[in-house]
Amino acid sequence: MAVEIVLPLVLGISVLSLAVAGLLARQVLAADSGTVEMRAISEAIREGAEAFLARQYRTIALLSVVAAAAIFGFYYANRNVQNIAEMGEGTAFKVTLSFITGALCSAIAGYIGMFVSIRANIRTAAAAMTSLNRALQLALRGGAVSGLSVVAMSLLGVGGLFYLFGGMHDYEHVPLQIVGFGFGASFVALFAQLGGGIYTKAADVGADLVGKVEAGIPEDDPRNPAVIADLVGDNVGDCAGRGADLFESTAAENVGAMILGIALYPVFGLGGILFPLLARAFGLIATIAGVLSVKCREDQDPMSALNRGYLVTTLLAMAGFAAAVYLLLRPVAGTTLPVQQGYLLLAGIIGIATAYAFVWITQYYTEYRYRPVRSIAEASRTGPATNIIAGLAVGLECTGLPVIVISGALMGAYWCGKMALADLPGAGLYGTAIATMGMLAPCAYILAMDTFGPITDNAGGIIEMSKQPEAIRHKTDRLDAVGNTTKALTKGYAIGSAALAAFLLFSAYLDEVKKITGLHLGVDLTRVPVFVGGLLGATLVFVFSALAIKAVGKAAQVVIGEVRRQFRENPGIMAGTSKPDYARCVDIVTAAALREMVAPGLLAVLTPVVVGFSFRYLSPYGQIGAEAVAALLMVGTIAGILMATMMNNGGGAWDNAKKYIESGLFSVDGQVVGKRSEPHKAAVVGDTVGDPFKDTAGPSLHVLIKLLSTLTLVLAPLFIL
Amino acid sequence: MAVEIVLPLVLGISVLSLAVAGLLARQVLAADSGTVEMRAISEAIREGAEAFLARQYRTIALLSVVAAAAIFGFYYANRNVQNIAEMGEGTAFKVTLSFITGALCSAIAGYIGMFVSIRANIRTAAAAMTSLNRALQLALRGGAVSGLSVVAMSLLGVGGLFYLFGGMHDYEHVPLQIVGFGFGASFVALFAQLGGGIYTKAADVGADLVGKVEAGIPEDDPRNPAVIADLVGDNVGDCAGRGADLFESTAAENVGAMILGIALYPVFGLGGILFPLLARAFGLIATIAGVLSVKCREDQDPMSALNRGYLVTTLLAMAGFAAAVYLLLRPVAGTTLPVQQGYLLLAGIIGIATAYAFVWITQYYTEYRYRPVRSIAEASRTGPATNIIAGLAVGLECTGLPVIVISGALMGAYWCGKMALADLPGAGLYGTAIATMGMLAPCAYILAMDTFGPITDNAGGIIEMSKQPEAIRHKTDRLDAVGNTTKALTKGYAIGSAALAAFLLFSAYLDEVKKITGLHLGVDLTRVPVFVGGLLGATLVFVFSALAIKAVGKAAQVVIGEVRRQFRENPGIMAGTSKPDYARCVDIVTAAALREMVAPGLLAVLTPVVVGFSFRYLSPYGQIGAEAVAALLMVGTIAGILMATMMNNGGGAWDNAKKYIESGLFSVDGQVVGKRSEPHKAAVVGDTVGDPFKDTAGPSLHVLIKLLSTLTLVLAPLFIL
Repeated sequence: MAVEIVLPLVLGISVLSLAVAGLLARQVLAADSGTVEMRAISEAIREGAEAFLARQYRTIALLSVVAAAAIFGFYYANRNVQNIAEMGEGTAFKVTLSFITGALCSAIAGYIGMFVSIRANIRTAAAAMTSLNRALQLALRGGAVSGLSVVAMSLLGVGGLFYLFGGMHDYEHVPLQIVGFGFGASFVALFAQLGGGIYTKAADVGADLVGKVEAGIPEDDPRNPAVIADLVGDNVGDCAGRGADLFESTAAENVGAMILGIALYPVFGLGGILFPLLARAFGLIATIAGVLSVKCREDQDPMSALNRGYLVTTLLAMAGFAAAVYLLLRPVAGTTLPVQQGYLLLAGIIGIATAYAFVWITQYYTEYRYRPVRSIAEASRTGPATNIIAGLAVGLECTGLPVIVISGALMGAYWCGKMALADLPGAGLYGTAIATMGMLAPCAYILAMDTFGPITDNAGGIIEMSKQPEAIRHKTDRLDAVGNTTKALTKGYAIGSAALAAFLLFSAYLDEVKKITGLHLGVDLTRVPVFVGGLLGATLVFVFSALAIKAVGKAAQVVIGEVRRQFRENPGIMAGTSKPDYARCVDIVTAAALREMVAPGLLAVLTPVVVGFSFRYLSPYGQIGAEAVAALLMVGTIAGILMATMMNNGGGAWDNAKKYIESGLFSVDGQVVGKRSEPHKAAVVGDTVGDPFKDTAGPSLHVLIKLLSTLTLVLAPLFIL
Repeated sequence: MAVEIVLPLVLGISVLSLAVAGLLARQVLAADSGTVEMRAISEAIREGAEAFLARQYRTIALLSVVAAAAIFGFYYANRNVQNIAEMGEGTAFKVTLSFITGALCSAIAGYIGMFVSIRANIRTAAAAMTSLNRALQLALRGGAVSGLSVVAMSLLGVGGLFYLFGGMHDYEHVPLQIVGFGFGASFVALFAQLGGGIYTKAADVGADLVGKVEAGIPEDDPRNPAVIADLVGDNVGDCAGRGADLFESTAAENVGAMILGIALYPVFGLGGILFPLLARAFGLIATIAGVLSVKCREDQDPMSALNRGYLVTTLLAMAGFAAAVYLLLRPVAGTTLPVQQGYLLLAGIIGIATAYAFVWITQYYTEYRYRPVRSIAEASRTGPATNIIAGLAVGLECTGLPVIVISGALMGAYWCGKMALADLPGAGLYGTAIATMGMLAPCAYILAMDTFGPITDNAGGIIEMSKQPEAIRHKTDRLDAVGNTTKALTKGYAIGSAALAAFLLFSAYLDEVKKITGLHLGVDLTRVPVFVGGLLGATLVFVFSALAIKAVGKAAQVVIGEVRRQFRENPGIMAGTSKPDYARCVDIVTAAALREMVAPGLLAVLTPVVVGFSFRYLSPYGQIGAEAVAALLMVGTIAGILMATMMNNGGGAWDNAKKYIESGLFSVDGQVVGKRSEPHKAAVVGDTVGDPFKDTAGPSLHVLIKLLSTLTLVLAPLFIL
């Protein structure tokens, strides 16, 4: 295949996918939107979510402008320093433009996802009144709008900038200039995920503590003034937040893999650089087919329908992957080196298998069919303290298997790369890059399943609040339960891909440093400043998690105060004679979440900058800022992977231990106990503790890990002036 | 000073200190031992503790024999391989002998400490009936027996083996042979701390959950069948466990510093190798003076008396340190290199200052005068869930300051070393070694304060159980409160010194590898297998913590079952007409704790062994087992420092948040709330969650960190055959 047509092909597939996303959106919007009561509720959710996003984007835009100015300033001020000068004409401008484009695309992708999901929720609810299959399809297609847009936007951004900056001719410098795109995406993703995560859990915890515990009214009861804020939270946290998260994953990892491809230019030519884009584009086509293939009968488990779609997507993506390997990863004319494409394909299969393994492990630790969740339920018999201890133990323990899988995948893919390219320098690393691409091939489908979660959750809430009959509620409950599973799986997948990709991004960073300085940089922990960098990186993860968790607590206190005030000042609410002021609650959570997201966000962004520059300028150890930052990045990533896994799975396990007790399958001394029993009360405590773990700190850590990588990629030339 | 007299001087001071410890023990034993009822209780505690220790030592002895055989086997089988052969005649025998000596000394030190503490408890209780000062002095002197013995035994062991193996002539190989001593100490310490930690918290949690929560009887009520087991636990966990922990710290760090001293032999001669021993010996003298200086008036805060003693110890230790620097760290004849002793002393002062900073930071995060603990108490207003969230946030956050202090200390001491020795290779590292020696100089006094904790805790329990008048109970309560503070401080100190020493031990490992292979080994995280080693090291910390926490839960379930059984089968217990079967409870906890300590212990020991050998023999990446293990060690240490800090301080903060609410200083809406209020119930949940954190997993992690170091030091020659 002529390499010139790869980029047009990728861009074409991306535009096509956006068109399909548009068609799916039209189909969703054309569906019936239910009764008047339902519309009123959905309208309130829509307004709240849009108001939050508008205000959040304003804050993020402000922060982004400051960051863009700083990047431009640093690069421009040092434009005549050799390192920067060698990166080519107008580097300051190009890096900054990439950053802004990345930030903008991320914001647009987040907006599109939410635009559809806050409209798909009511239509899913309405469809559930007639057909389960129709509801399932609407929810998944609504989610697919988000999944397809995210991946397509990321390809358009990276591919477009590569073309625009003349990458087809200047393949060596352009990838270094478009690292800004990845950083822009990470920057927006960090604040989007933090703000959304704080919002959703502050509203949830606040609504539960006053509503369920103090006032004794059920969940999603329309008398609770925070109930709309809670439903809004599902959208801004899960849709917008995770959308931005996976947008930046695909963006950062595309750029990283392209940088690694440069090292193999003598073998593959441009094909090795463009391979990640083509593999991802084929993944988009696979996703479209997979989404359209999903349907289920009334009596069927919706989860098995989704799993079938995932299988279709994976098989097609694998075929596309093989095609991309065959077409692009072949020796250019004039190279005598033997290339064994089979091993390259094997590396990709290792990646895809890793994705599967993570999904399985996550299920084992978070579903109540298995021992871990049951052990938490058992421990609830002796009260909340033992429930918490058991949950923390499960969270800490569940880091073991994923790490063994990732270790095996890294070593295996590295070995494949070496085998494929006869030990060429960089070959092993390119093997790990290919595995990462494999893991990310079905990414758009995973994201569609993820957004499926909040859509069905909202649909359930709307049915509940508008007091629909039991039979319909039963249908949305089934969809909602499936949504909880898919949300958990996505988190496992996201952290797994982050772990695998981390190595790719480190290597890209080191490659970049090498290209700039000619030095092969190691990250030698035996040097005191490098060790200190690593220590600070791991500590960043701990302190960042603390701030994220505290932010939820503080914002929740604000909600609690407001709900109590409304109950006190307007007794008609509890009597059902007057409506609570939903909008005020939404306003208050919005303001609190945006205020609280700033501290952890800035900590994450500023730590590597401060460490890098202070080692660069102040340390008596010579110019090893770049190496100390690399250690911060690598050890921080290790700590982040573990902490995120602990928080995601621990939180999920607590949640499902509660659900297990509610399910009626749990018995003490031969007697079934359920809701409102003492063990159930203990399990509710665990569930509440797990909330900020799994929906705020954990997902934010995914973004933090990748932010560290993209940030250091952008700043690398400055640390080694 | 002629260097030949250093070793005799060190050994002499050690023997002298043991003699002083003997005198203090005699003084304690000669004191009045209270009423008949008190003696009966004390007797039961003594019997339980001794039975536990006897059975625990039997298990540990068995494991140690297996380990010793494995070490001997590995070394002997490879005795003709060049690396091992170069270590000198009889290396297999010498390393194994060192291991056995270390294990034995550690066991003896633990036994001495407990022997005195389980006898000092009742005498402290009896003394409290007449004089606070007398009680304070008895408890501290009882603790000092432990502190002095531990440090003196460690000096005797290391110094004696050095002399015995001919270190005065063969300075280059002997330190490598006595690394076995450090490993032996770590090995015993790991199981002692794990077993003791599991025992103490299983008994505590079990007694509380059935006694306080189910039966509604107060703490330390004689009707509770687990009450004696609970009091036994304080001794076996805090005395024996922490004694073994600090024994191995001093042993491992002495050996590590001596190995680093070898590199500077051309400058300092034997003086640089023997310096750590002399500095520590002077610290012993300082401790004796400090302990004897402590006294307090009836109306005085006992804590300020202890602080005064700490100040005396520190000032004398500093003077001794300066003398040791002046006498030993001077250029040998024929060296033209300028040595600036002032900078070396400065490095030592940095270490001492670090010890102070850690004590202060620990207080800030764990005392209820400050914001963090109060924030947990505030959060208890909205129930146990928010209490737990706040406590976890405090635990995660409190890692920040200590890491900044350690980073500064490492960089500062490194810089001092370089300044002192004009950038000689190894100079910076020796600077960090000197700082570690400085931090450990007052170690014996710290350990005396630590053992003070369980003695006063037990004294309070004896007074409570034998129903003494309120006024006496008030005195022992005051001492008990001080004991809680000193226990928390010791943990902060122990983790701080572990963190500082970690770098020393890494460097010793790398020095050893260099001596054996001639290769300067880096730990380059950019190599895939090395990164995987690091990832596995951090994961080990997470999974180890999970197993330790789960072990407490499982052992506590056994206690709960037994207490319930006794209440059910013998109604006379609750009526007060018949005595519960204390001994059976003690037996059951003993068996459960010993069973449960094996899994986490073996995990810790086997992981580095398996990683080292599998990379060595199986990996396709060449012979980098040593480097992968070094990464495991270093990243594992980073994760361990953070996790231990989080668990120790988080647990302490939860405990004191509960105490704050009990103190009557806490109010909700202007109204004071105390015991049995809703916030108090929530705080009790947090306290229970914190128990296995701060008394089992946290302290065991200190030992784990150092075990990884000493284990890899011992096995290094085998990973690089």
